[in-house]
Amino acid sequence: MNAKSNPHYQTLVNHFQSISHFEHLSALGDWDQATMMPMGGGEARGAAMAELAKHIHSLKTAPMLAQTISEADELPLTEQQKANLTEMRYQYLQANVVPSELVVAKTKAAYHCEHAWREQRSNNDWQGFKPNLENLMSLAKEEANIRAEAQNVSPYDALLDKFEPGMTTASLEQIFGNLKSWLPQLIQQVQDKQKSEASFTIPTASAESQARLGREIMNILDFDFNHGRLDISSHPFCGGVASDVRLTTRYDEGDFTSGLMGIVHETGHAKYEQGLPLAWRGQPAGLARSMALHESQSLFCEMQVGRGPAFLKLIEPYLSSLLGSQLTHDQLTNIYTRVTPGLIRVDADEVTYPCHILLRFEAEKALVSGELAVADLPEFWSSQMQSLLGINTDGDYKNGCMQDIHWAVGELGYFPSYTLGAMYAAQFRNAMECELGCMESLINSGKLSSVMGWLNDKIWSQGSLLSIDELMRQSTGETLNPEHFKKHLIGRYL
Amino acid sequence: MNAKSNPHYQTLVNHFQSISHFEHLSALGDWDQATMMPMGGGEARGAAMAELAKHIHSLKTAPMLAQTISEADELPLTEQQKANLTEMRYQYLQANVVPSELVVAKTKAAYHCEHAWREQRSNNDWQGFKPNLENLMSLAKEEANIRAEAQNVSPYDALLDKFEPGMTTASLEQIFGNLKSWLPQLIQQVQDKQKSEASFTIPTASAESQARLGREIMNILDFDFNHGRLDISSHPFCGGVASDVRLTTRYDEGDFTSGLMGIVHETGHAKYEQGLPLAWRGQPAGLARSMALHESQSLFCEMQVGRGPAFLKLIEPYLSSLLGSQLTHDQLTNIYTRVTPGLIRVDADEVTYPCHILLRFEAEKALVSGELAVADLPEFWSSQMQSLLGINTDGDYKNGCMQDIHWAVGELGYFPSYTLGAMYAAQFRNAMECELGCMESLINSGKLSSVMGWLNDKIWSQGSLLSIDELMRQSTGETLNPEHFKKHLIGRYL
Repeated sequence: MNAKSNPHYQTLVNHFQSISHFEHLSALGDWDQATMMPMGGGEARGAAMAELAKHIHSLKTAPMLAQTISEADELPLTEQQKANLTEMRYQYLQANVVPSELVVAKTKAAYHCEHAWREQRSNNDWQGFKPNLENLMSLAKEEANIRAEAQNVSPYDALLDKFEPGMTTASLEQIFGNLKSWLPQLIQQVQDKQKSEASFTIPTASAESQARLGREIMNILDFDFNHGRLDISSHPFCGGVASDVRLTTRYDEGDFTSGLMGIVHETGHAKYEQGLPLAWRGQPAGLARSMALHESQSLFCEMQVGRGPAFLKLIEPYLSSLLGSQLTHDQLTNIYTRVTPGLIRVDADEVTYPCHILLRFEAEKALVSGELAVADLPEFWSSQMQSLLGINTDGDYKNGCMQDIHWAVGELGYFPSYTLGAMYAAQFRNAMECELGCMESLINSGKLSSVMGWLNDKIWSQGSLLSIDELMRQSTGETLNPEHFKKHLIGRYL
Repeated sequence: MNAKSNPHYQTLVNHFQSISHFEHLSALGDWDQATMMPMGGGEARGAAMAELAKHIHSLKTAPMLAQTISEADELPLTEQQKANLTEMRYQYLQANVVPSELVVAKTKAAYHCEHAWREQRSNNDWQGFKPNLENLMSLAKEEANIRAEAQNVSPYDALLDKFEPGMTTASLEQIFGNLKSWLPQLIQQVQDKQKSEASFTIPTASAESQARLGREIMNILDFDFNHGRLDISSHPFCGGVASDVRLTTRYDEGDFTSGLMGIVHETGHAKYEQGLPLAWRGQPAGLARSMALHESQSLFCEMQVGRGPAFLKLIEPYLSSLLGSQLTHDQLTNIYTRVTPGLIRVDADEVTYPCHILLRFEAEKALVSGELAVADLPEFWSSQMQSLLGINTDGDYKNGCMQDIHWAVGELGYFPSYTLGAMYAAQFRNAMECELGCMESLINSGKLSSVMGWLNDKIWSQGSLLSIDELMRQSTGETLNPEHFKKHLIGRYL
């Protein structure tokens, strides 16, 4: 199929290639803001990013698109080109729904809110943060309502769809409802089981030595440093573009273990990006399939691989040579499988983590529907934390509802992706083991690359060429099945 | 004067504000490419930056501009708004004169030529470089001819005007002709005088300790780290935007003195940017006045302040505490005022530097007029180097006519800015001393801030609100007067 046989499709390919160039710059601006930019540069950067967002929005809503997409659909296309056209149409619809004034207003409010949040959070300054969040939430709700009307779904469903196309509140209520029915009890059982474990001291380690260690671990996971970097930011993330993936972490000199696993986690995201199909770079079909699938790759790396005994054994020599660690294998395993209800989502262990998501899911639903006012969020937070994890957060905004960046940038509907990702990851592992045998044995025998190879074949290299359900069926034989996650937790922790 | 009284002007303000937002992103992309980007990210970045350049060009040549500028000119404007409108018209004409096919052809040829030059230079491969340079020069001449016709000036004047609005070949011939009449003799005299100075060893210093030192020195110069950064790149530069100035240097662990003065130099550029008028940010009138004036600020910082005894005294304690240096004040002064004719422009001292510019000015004029063929450039170079600095460069292309990046990217007309900058700097110092008294005494008595304050008032905060001549008259009482530079050199070196 060549350009001549479908000139409309070729026009679209060129147009979306342009969009991807501007999105490249947007990704760079975001990364720089979080890692390099001095505080005082924020205002001008915010204005530049808002202008860029407006321009990208205008390209995604170009008047010619609707007709050109229809015309392209009527001429010959390969299956993959059809998939690309489907993604183009999805992006067009997603962008076209929201008026550009709202996009600009929300981008500006988000920059302002996030910028202030960085300092407000460390000062536990809820009163300072609240008005910014209220402003941003009202814009986010406006967006949700507009999307909802256009897609004929509920406002919160419309937000979920941005990150996990096709996911609904109803499905999540079922999946999360089931989770809620057994997870708190499991947490209790695991804690009882772990009660007798002896405590020990984690050696201190400088940020520099942790960064050196991090790079070694990224090499073990075959991260391509010719197409990416590792830096420091206050909130770890994986950004940049597929050809230049920028991941970040933060280092606690008193406890290297969390920064280290942060790197393993973000490397999982990065591997997905670096593995996206080269032939489809710059096209919608060349992007990662969904945010939950993105999280599934980071969680596969961190939870399935990273916290397992074989991987820990693999990295132990680096811990002793680079950090002078004398932790035994059992102690390391203990650290990385210790279940302790805590305040902070990003520091949570694999078992209590979903509780943090259940809370946020309930909060977001209620914020969007208007049942919960921003002013009442801290109280809601504390009461949910008490019922899910037995922790009171009254007055502790910093480690409560101010801890995440998501709401501070006006992003609602993302949080469920984390737990959906954990479920997908367990499902991938199960399918992989059916094909390749026990993953722990593979890693033990030096075959971590076959594990990565399986993920590359089944997920990374597929980009968005398949629907989520089709990707899951082709890679695991079934659509999302949360049972694998339950089995994984029980198998590892009981 | 408000927006209602001149809506056309307001339209232009908004339009140029948009352009500045995209230029912000362009500056970020350039900085990142030179400091942070992994090699493998280059291709996608190049494509994104080309897309951005195309977009900025389309904004600068928007069809509505010609008429809107005329209409704005017919309605009430303040003096400063008039100055802004003048700059808008200048930018519009500069961008509009050259047909976009020629811009694209030259950009491509420049990319090809520069890319190959990097390797050709290190291989001393003149035969490989020559055809690329010939191709690029013929495009540069085409551009010069088109600009010349549109502006009704000579082709080389049109190129000079891109960097130093209003500067002409005739003026430069007079200024540089005068320089040529006394500089070679001065160099000889200084060398005779310095012959007897004893040699000594410069202590080694790690890149980390040099970076710490650099930041201390930047603090002394009152660089605003809330609006800027210091990083490493293979070629030092000052980039970013006024609200977030990114300067770079490189560290030679065997000789800290050049990296250190590189930081002082780039800080001079940065101070100009940081001092540009806040009220005019994002508007053409808020930009630095010209490239020669930009160089005047870096050279003021480096040559007038940085290499003077009072500043060296100020930084000596940092050299000993951070680098363990035991260099005496006399030795340090000796390092920073030693005059040695050499092959490389960027390594040249203050006295021999203008000779490198005289050579390039003559070469560019002759290349553009056609009197000199690219093939004859090496011979021309060697003969000029012999007559100006007594150095034969026959066969040494690498350290001869292939040493600079400027021609390899098709940039002609920039070189004179360096020496004009040195002259402006000396003239500023003279005027400042008439008002504030001896600068060395001011620095000695802890009043470096009054020096910086004077520059801020007279130059930085003026942006492009005054013409170059008017700026010079208001700050120094006269237009460019090269005599001050001559007096400075004689005063410092004889």
